[in-house]
Amino acid sequence: MAKVLIINGPNLNLLGTREPEVYGAATLADIEALVRERAQLRNSEASFFHSNHEGEIVDALQGAAGVYDAVVINPGALTHYSYALRDAVASIAIPVVEVHLSNIAAREEFRATSVIAPACAGQISGFGPDSYVLGLEAALVVLGRTQ
Amino acid sequence: MAKVLIINGPNLNLLGTREPEVYGAATLADIEALVRERAQLRNSEASFFHSNHEGEIVDALQGAAGVYDAVVINPGALTHYSYALRDAVASIAIPVVEVHLSNIAAREEFRATSVIAPACAGQISGFGPDSYVLGLEAALVVLGRTQ
Amino acid sequence: MAKVLIINGPNLNLLGTREPEVYGAATLADIEALVRERAQLRNSEASFFHSNHEGEIVDALQGAAGVYDAVVINPGALTHYSYALRDAVASIAIPVVEVHLSNIAAREEFRATSVIAPACAGQISGFGPDSYVLGLEAALVVLGRTQ
Amino acid sequence: MAKVLIINGPNLNLLGTREPEVYGAATLADIEALVRERAQLRNSEASFFHSNHEGEIVDALQGAAGVYDAVVINPGALTHYSYALRDAVASIAIPVVEVHLSNIAAREEFRATSVIAPACAGQISGFGPDSYVLGLEAALVVLGRTQ
Amino acid sequence: MAKVLIINGPNLNLLGTREPEVYGAATLADIEALVRERAQLRNSEASFFHSNHEGEIVDALQGAAGVYDAVVINPGALTHYSYALRDAVASIAIPVVEVHLSNIAAREEFRATSVIAPACAGQISGFGPDSYVLGLEAALVVLGRTQ
Amino acid sequence: MAKVLIINGPNLNLLGTREPEVYGAATLADIEALVRERAQLRNSEASFFHSNHEGEIVDALQGAAGVYDAVVINPGALTHYSYALRDAVASIAIPVVEVHLSNIAAREEFRATSVIAPACAGQISGFGPDSYVLGLEAALVVLGRTQ
Amino acid sequence: MAKVLIINGPNLNLLGTREPEVYGAATLADIEALVRERAQLRNSEASFFHSNHEGEIVDALQGAAGVYDAVVINPGALTHYSYALRDAVASIAIPVVEVHLSNIAAREEFRATSVIAPACAGQISGFGPDSYVLGLEAALVVLGRTQ
Amino acid sequence: MAKVLIINGPNLNLLGTREPEVYGAATLADIEALVRERAQLRNSEASFFHSNHEGEIVDALQGAAGVYDAVVINPGALTHYSYALRDAVASIAIPVVEVHLSNIAAREEFRATSVIAPACAGQISGFGPDSYVLGLEAALVVLGRTQ
Amino acid sequence: MAKVLIINGPNLNLLGTREPEVYGAATLADIEALVRERAQLRNSEASFFHSNHEGEIVDALQGAAGVYDAVVINPGALTHYSYALRDAVASIAIPVVEVHLSNIAAREEFRATSVIAPACAGQISGFGPDSYVLGLEAALVVLGRTQ
Amino acid sequence: MAKVLIINGPNLNLLGTREPEVYGAATLADIEALVRERAQLRNSEASFFHSNHEGEIVDALQGAAGVYDAVVINPGALTHYSYALRDAVASIAIPVVEVHLSNIAAREEFRATSVIAPACAGQISGFGPDSYVLGLEAALVVLGRTQ
Amino acid sequence: MAKVLIINGPNLNLLGTREPEVYGAATLADIEALVRERAQLRNSEASFFHSNHEGEIVDALQGAAGVYDAVVINPGALTHYSYALRDAVASIAIPVVEVHLSNIAAREEFRATSVIAPACAGQISGFGPDSYVLGLEAALVVLGRTQ
Amino acid sequence: MAKVLIINGPNLNLLGTREPEVYGAATLADIEALVRERAQLRNSEASFFHSNHEGEIVDALQGAAGVYDAVVINPGALTHYSYALRDAVASIAIPVVEVHLSNIAAREEFRATSVIAPACAGQISGFGPDSYVLGLEAALVVLGRTQ
Repeated sequence: MAKVLIINGPNLNLLGTREPEVYGAATLADIEALVRERAQLRNSEASFFHSNHEGEIVDALQGAAGVYDAVVINPGALTHYSYALRDAVASIAIPVVEVHLSNIAAREEFRATSVIAPACAGQISGFGPDSYVLGLEAALVVLGRTQ
Repeated sequence: MAKVLIINGPNLNLLGTREPEVYGAATLADIEALVRERAQLRNSEASFFHSNHEGEIVDALQGAAGVYDAVVINPGALTHYSYALRDAVASIAIPVVEVHLSNIAAREEFRATSVIAPACAGQISGFGPDSYVLGLEAALVVLGRTQ
Repeated sequence: MAKVLIINGPNLNLLGTREPEVYGAATLADIEALVRERAQLRNSEASFFHSNHEGEIVDALQGAAGVYDAVVINPGALTHYSYALRDAVASIAIPVVEVHLSNIAAREEFRATSVIAPACAGQISGFGPDSYVLGLEAALVVLGRTQ
Repeated sequence: MAKVLIINGPNLNLLGTREPEVYGAATLADIEALVRERAQLRNSEASFFHSNHEGEIVDALQGAAGVYDAVVINPGALTHYSYALRDAVASIAIPVVEVHLSNIAAREEFRATSVIAPACAGQISGFGPDSYVLGLEAALVVLGRTQ
Repeated sequence: MAKVLIINGPNLNLLGTREPEVYGAATLADIEALVRERAQLRNSEASFFHSNHEGEIVDALQGAAGVYDAVVINPGALTHYSYALRDAVASIAIPVVEVHLSNIAAREEFRATSVIAPACAGQISGFGPDSYVLGLEAALVVLGRTQ
Repeated sequence: MAKVLIINGPNLNLLGTREPEVYGAATLADIEALVRERAQLRNSEASFFHSNHEGEIVDALQGAAGVYDAVVINPGALTHYSYALRDAVASIAIPVVEVHLSNIAAREEFRATSVIAPACAGQISGFGPDSYVLGLEAALVVLGRTQ
Repeated sequence: MAKVLIINGPNLNLLGTREPEVYGAATLADIEALVRERAQLRNSEASFFHSNHEGEIVDALQGAAGVYDAVVINPGALTHYSYALRDAVASIAIPVVEVHLSNIAAREEFRATSVIAPACAGQISGFGPDSYVLGLEAALVVLGRTQ
Repeated sequence: MAKVLIINGPNLNLLGTREPEVYGAATLADIEALVRERAQLRNSEASFFHSNHEGEIVDALQGAAGVYDAVVINPGALTHYSYALRDAVASIAIPVVEVHLSNIAAREEFRATSVIAPACAGQISGFGPDSYVLGLEAALVVLGRTQ
Repeated sequence: MAKVLIINGPNLNLLGTREPEVYGAATLADIEALVRERAQLRNSEASFFHSNHEGEIVDALQGAAGVYDAVVINPGALTHYSYALRDAVASIAIPVVEVHLSNIAAREEFRATSVIAPACAGQISGFGPDSYVLGLEAALVVLGRTQ
Repeated sequence: MAKVLIINGPNLNLLGTREPEVYGAATLADIEALVRERAQLRNSEASFFHSNHEGEIVDALQGAAGVYDAVVINPGALTHYSYALRDAVASIAIPVVEVHLSNIAAREEFRATSVIAPACAGQISGFGPDSYVLGLEAALVVLGRTQ
Repeated sequence: MAKVLIINGPNLNLLGTREPEVYGAATLADIEALVRERAQLRNSEASFFHSNHEGEIVDALQGAAGVYDAVVINPGALTHYSYALRDAVASIAIPVVEVHLSNIAAREEFRATSVIAPACAGQISGFGPDSYVLGLEAALVVLGRTQ
Repeated sequence: MAKVLIINGPNLNLLGTREPEVYGAATLADIEALVRERAQLRNSEASFFHSNHEGEIVDALQGAAGVYDAVVINPGALTHYSYALRDAVASIAIPVVEVHLSNIAAREEFRATSVIAPACAGQISGFGPDSYVLGLEAALVVLGRTQ
């Protein structure tokens, strides 16, 4: 049974109230429920971690290595400048899938570039809460592929 | 029953023989079988179109509007310069999901930018043939969301 | 009696239904009627060609050389990257006028640059269907000037 | 009867003697006669203003608001840096059409960018003195469209 | 009675000893006293928070939402790269005013750009400790304006 | 009693009617009244100068040197290119404060850069008419600091 | 006996009449005769293909793989933007030599960059029709080297 | 006897008091005396014009054409953005020499570029008031060369 | 006896297991032992601090000021964007030496730039664990030089 | 009988031992033999010059003018910055052909640009030692063309 | 009696025969005679040095320090990249004046930037052989100023 | 006993007199004595080479290959543009360590980039004459590591 850690970065705890015209009405709890449900369906286990602190997310990624089989991460705005997260992703042996609620290619120019994506297995963006569900599916695919 | 058109752009007909260390061993037929299977599972119908001609893909996108419910497109190298495809995507009322076999963020610099993505519903890259399967799922999600 | 070919590029066949808040409600047929009427008034003859294929437009430009006296072209999104069109325009002896429905300077940054304009006689943008009518007038002016 | 103000910017008073290989042999008076004739034909009235001073052109644009129905402007070299003109154009309720004698896309690189165009209704360049005549026609078109 | 939170970012706790030729001799405590005094004068209440940790400042901004009426923030060097702060500012409903002790336009090139300012109500820089006092006044102005 | 000159650049005379969704409903006269009132409160004297002409503003800045104690300037669109204003500010011995009605960091990209700010004492933007009031306060602060 | 396919891209069919001061007086037929003659001398066989359509050239490159031993290509203006051609070149097992009539380094800036060259064996430019003859020789060299 | 007009742009009237560590202690009157003396020595006649207004300098350049044999100009900060001055220089038949007191290559980056120099006969910078004297000599040289 | 603090940034705790082909087989403990040994040899004392949190490293730098004589820092990926670290380095009176295990000039382009180096005494990169030993030596050199 | 000088720039004397995976196993002597052989076949004469000194190569190019009929040059790394070589090539009346062993478009970004090529007759790259042979042939072609 | 060394860089020995439409018909000997004559008139002594070798010019600049009072240098194409020359100029105590025959601002873009000028006293360009004469005069001026 | 060659580039022979506020008071002889002393301590042998000529340094690097075990190089200003030096470093089998007296990251922008560093083993900058001593130590470390 695959164990997948879902990591959320800065400000994603505000989902539901934060700029709903961009990010939708679902709360982080709603998303977690959605992902947990899909995980059960896939006979896998989803755990969740959120932090507004870059350092704590680096710690979480490092700690995930021996405990989880894969990571799905929405780095929030850290996506665009945190080379520390990129190195953390590159440093651990388990696959990492980057997800985004909104289509980051269709917003401000700085959001079109992810400094983390080159170290990830792949990237999914634009499908709202379902980006996480698809991210979970993608992680399971990568696990299947690499085993 | 949702009808989804899967469009493949230049050189994707060579899959399996073309740079397999980058694109893998699966042929386009293998991918089509994979997607068709998933479509059946989701009670939907997948059709396929391939062309090395930008103009034919524009035609196909325009023609898809009244016939299909959604499009999943891997524009191949047209991803990086075909504003004509971007305008075609923006011109039609049905949702379009952009997919890539490889993680385009982790290759040559010019591949990191998609001029088409801003007009799409979202983007999925890096999961090999499963990028298409996830793209189909994503299209169904978007259809569910927008109905 | 001057013979002028009006060429329309990718996605302009969708006019009337395509993003009407940007491109207006007139269809390509409406525009053709408008231009034909003005042509008659000016004792000249307007012919029309549309294609979503860059190659066909290059062919059409080359073919126009011995048959028409001038060309009015709306290259659509090819405006921004098709150096092949630019070379075709530069290769033929008859004058070419570039037209755009919308004010391309007031939209996305990539639309502000035309790689084709340097090879044209001049450029007209922002006047909706009347950009074509003004383009016809401009072509007749250039013909008068260069004879 | 539409009243249109034709504004000419720095150095355009030298037309006829200034770099005739670029700008042609017609003087500003010749152009004014040409435009006046066409205005009469269209049952409208053309007035003319020239200044080498950016500030006076801003004043003229502001003053045009209550007096004229539209403006046709050739900002000369101010085209490429005068954000003050751009703001003046954006500040007044009447439509403004930007015109250029030469094809600015085919000259020095700095001439290819107009900082004023995004605030105008549209732009016409490359048709010599007839750029003004076409500009007048365009202004009348826009007036018709917006009334 | 308006409640305003004053947030200070990395290294601002060193004020008074840190590069006094740039930042002046006043300590953070001096500045807090100055602001508190003005707050009393304006019949409002100023609270203070300092951290060298980006994540803690994001937390503080999120926590401010239900408790304070406005925020005055000097993000220190985070000004130039912390999109996470920018999103936090954009995510909360209360107005945020960005302040700087020095004139950031007159120093190293990288200091001239604030990635946070676009999400703020406005920006004040260059007036030493009084930048905070003016920031408080500005916050009260915005509160008056938006109520 | 400090004497402060308030200078307004191109198009600011149109305030109230010019793009009110950006610049608000207050006229320049309203702003002058607001500033005059605050000046009285601070036992100082505010004078006002407006021009759409860069040269006249350079003249005014030069002339201010022996007559006023400080200047508050909103250079309008000259902010973004007038190095002549920058040199004028740097050439005179009295402090100059730059103010803007709107938050210039949150608008078109060209508005985010002030070529004048590096020569000023500081900058205030985003607080509508109160940017001027805060600018007056800031000027008095700088005068106090430099005496 | 080596079989070599010579591919010519957009507008090269106009050689002889197209901007002869840049491209010379030789027609495409003249060049083909020249190359055929040299091929015979080298005991090899030259075939020719021209198209103004990017897609047809991609098709031709793909089709060449099993039929020809090498390709000599002058992509015309597609040189500067067709990543689809680049991928086609990279996708096939046979060597491809890029040739240009004019010295592309000595013309407009955009012509100095070939997006196709990185996928080719090498590049020859500037020797008029003889660029093709040298390209044929180069292809034979590469064939000899890689066998 | 050659007649030469010496034009000074914005803020040069402040010489002697303006940033003397950069521009030196000589006033504009001192410089005029120096140049006049040298003109006499060369049996020529020097006239002087100063303005802080771009438009007046354009007017002066245009007016110089029939009256003077050459112009020596220090455009001040207009050097770096006034394409209107550049066009004025290019529009008149007499030679123009650009001079600067300080070495503009050794100061802020924006000062290293002159948009006017390409239209001038040549440029002299860095020799304080003697830049004008050398400029006069240079103008006489050019007159001798072109007669 | 000089006291030197060795600070390690994000992901350096993973040394030995993290991308060993880039960073080598030595663990952070190995490096610490190596440095401690050299410190003893030099009659000085080395202390160690590691954190994945930018804020904690800022705290550590500030706290080092009164306690240690110098700092040797490997900021990890923070090297490339943490202006907060740069300001912390610039804020404290003791010298700071930047070290890197790998030759950062020979890797991805973003790693070639250190935003922290301008505030340090100097930089050493490329010598594996010995970069730290050389960094200790360099710190002692600087201490000797500045006393 | 045409006399051609083959010039080799910095580090090309190390061929055979220098990075053989990039430059191949042939020594400079091997290449000279190859070229000499082909020269004999073409009834021409090849001479050779190598230097690691930019200045000596400039001298050699200048000296070649009256002695040789053409030059084939591999400028080594000088290709990318030596405008002095470019000017030397442009200064002499005989044609110069630039050659490279490797495909410079397929290596580090800085190698893709030749500052010398615009002054040459043409460029050949990517064919190993045969680039020189093809360069000789090309030089003979150019001689034939220009006589 | 001031002693001035005139240094000429790469390819300037070809003057008279090299691209005479750009550089004129005067030979280097002509220029030397012209300068020598003026030196005598100014009761000073002009010596001359030419080299195509950057290193020799660095040597010459270093050697000039104790022997000459000033240097006039035309670095030829080294102007645009030789930071070694720049450092040599900055390293010696005597003033250096940079001169150019042609107006470098009016030619290819790379010629508009001098990396040497920031270390010189000033720059003169565009006056043909008289640039050297004016350079001598300028050097004497600087000597007078700095003594 | 390891033999190490210390190479110094342009203008480093002037150390002690050249801009002592940047480069310090030590002469090159002082530095050589310092390095020789340390070499003895390390039971190795240091030799020295200086040249202002890029070509001679390339020669020296090539010649070092069979004679020395390692090189320590301060390329002076060649650091920033001499790709010929970079290729020489990459061409030889022995390790090369780049050193700089000053902290090149803290000076003019062009000094922050070394085109040579990517080919070196590592880089040390900012420690004055001790940069050479540390460079010697680093070279010995690399030799130990690679044996």
